[in-house]
Amino acid sequence: PPGRKVLIVYAHQEPKSLNGSLKRVAVEELSKQGCSVTVSDLYAMQFEPRATRNDIVGCLHNPEEFNYGVETWEAYKRGDLSNDLIEEQKKVQEADLMIFQFPLYWFSMPAIMKGWMDRVLVQGFAHEFPNCYDSGLLKNKLALFSFTTGGSKEMYAKGGISGDIRYLLWPIQHGIMHFCGVKVLAPHICFAPEYVSEEKRKEMLIAWAQRLKALWKEEPINCSPEWYFK
Amino acid sequence: PPGRKVLIVYAHQEPKSLNGSLKRVAVEELSKQGCSVTVSDLYAMQFEPRATRNDIVGCLHNPEEFNYGVETWEAYKRGDLSNDLIEEQKKVQEADLMIFQFPLYWFSMPAIMKGWMDRVLVQGFAHEFPNCYDSGLLKNKLALFSFTTGGSKEMYAKGGISGDIRYLLWPIQHGIMHFCGVKVLAPHICFAPEYVSEEKRKEMLIAWAQRLKALWKEEPINCSPEWYFK
Repeated sequence: PPGRKVLIVYAHQEPKSLNGSLKRVAVEELSKQGCSVTVSDLYAMQFEPRATRNDIVGCLHNPEEFNYGVETWEAYKRGDLSNDLIEEQKKVQEADLMIFQFPLYWFSMPAIMKGWMDRVLVQGFAHEFPNCYDSGLLKNKLALFSFTTGGSKEMYAKGGISGDIRYLLWPIQHGIMHFCGVKVLAPHICFAPEYVSEEKRKEMLIAWAQRLKALWKEEPINCSPEWYFK
Repeated sequence: PPGRKVLIVYAHQEPKSLNGSLKRVAVEELSKQGCSVTVSDLYAMQFEPRATRNDIVGCLHNPEEFNYGVETWEAYKRGDLSNDLIEEQKKVQEADLMIFQFPLYWFSMPAIMKGWMDRVLVQGFAHEFPNCYDSGLLKNKLALFSFTTGGSKEMYAKGGISGDIRYLLWPIQHGIMHFCGVKVLAPHICFAPEYVSEEKRKEMLIAWAQRLKALWKEEPINCSPEWYFK
């Protein structure tokens, strides 16, 4: 609906890829709805995935023994995080919905996107004990993981060789998003697009556009072990 | 035992950290046993986590539409992967055992180590359909994930707020290592070292050294859904 803000965090090297098309479809459909859409195109930004001392501007809280979690927490409070992190945090702060668009790499997100999680979701900004899980600091936001796989739907079925696809969503949806208080919409999964026809890939894009039309009426999943492992 | 080769892939910024000490203990104990130990110190190497076109030397197989999986597979066969990847693959090839030493970041490994997985374990080298899982190309090797957590053992218990710690091992142990045919030893987990006494942290180092003394007699875990989710 008009006025809603969406951040798409996108990790694919090739604009012509299905991931690129899925991202474009989301930008178009959500813009058409009157949403304001921002894209963090991680490869194009050459986003830094490594969590290092460079993320803190100026002096360290404890220069004797570098602790990344403590230092970024302190730097956040002082306003001394590096500029790229401050930029991403602003986008997150403004977003009602975050869509993560990526190809599944090794049962998880590509390292460049994991680096976004590691570096942007700093203590003090996204969580601060005891404000985690249902009282995480990013509550009232939604997240949706939209990804493509190499393996087929059958491989990722319960009893399939790669196990229920939900098993691998636990660290991502529960461990990251739920921990920060973000509510999670059902994932959007395109299975094995490299092994289907051009026709089928077009249907995948249409299905995504269709889903986005009714997205704001969706209820978040019940992010409990039962959803993942039952 | 004398002659065994061990690769330690290590991801911590601070040598004085518990992770740094755990790594040192492993180097010392395994060297004392007569093993030959190699360390990939990812932060010190400024290891590149991003999967990009730079990983392929020379021309692309399909310059019209960049597909990282296909291009690295082809480059592997031609001997045209970037030097840093060739170096890491040599270390993997020679290793009987790989130890991954890291602090848990967001229910998973830090992005710099995920990038090592994304970039080093290329198709053709680590797997090549149908050679995956039990017939993966790295069979006859062992892996062990050794990590520290922020959360306590109680939080990571079954029914705890963060769920059974085994849930988050699925993508790492099954999705990566088992997929490549690597057999997995039980993980070594130091819970919440930042919240215990110096005395307790010393005990953690001693316990790790003790385990390493009898490591070569250990049997791999049964890497099936039952181990993770029962």
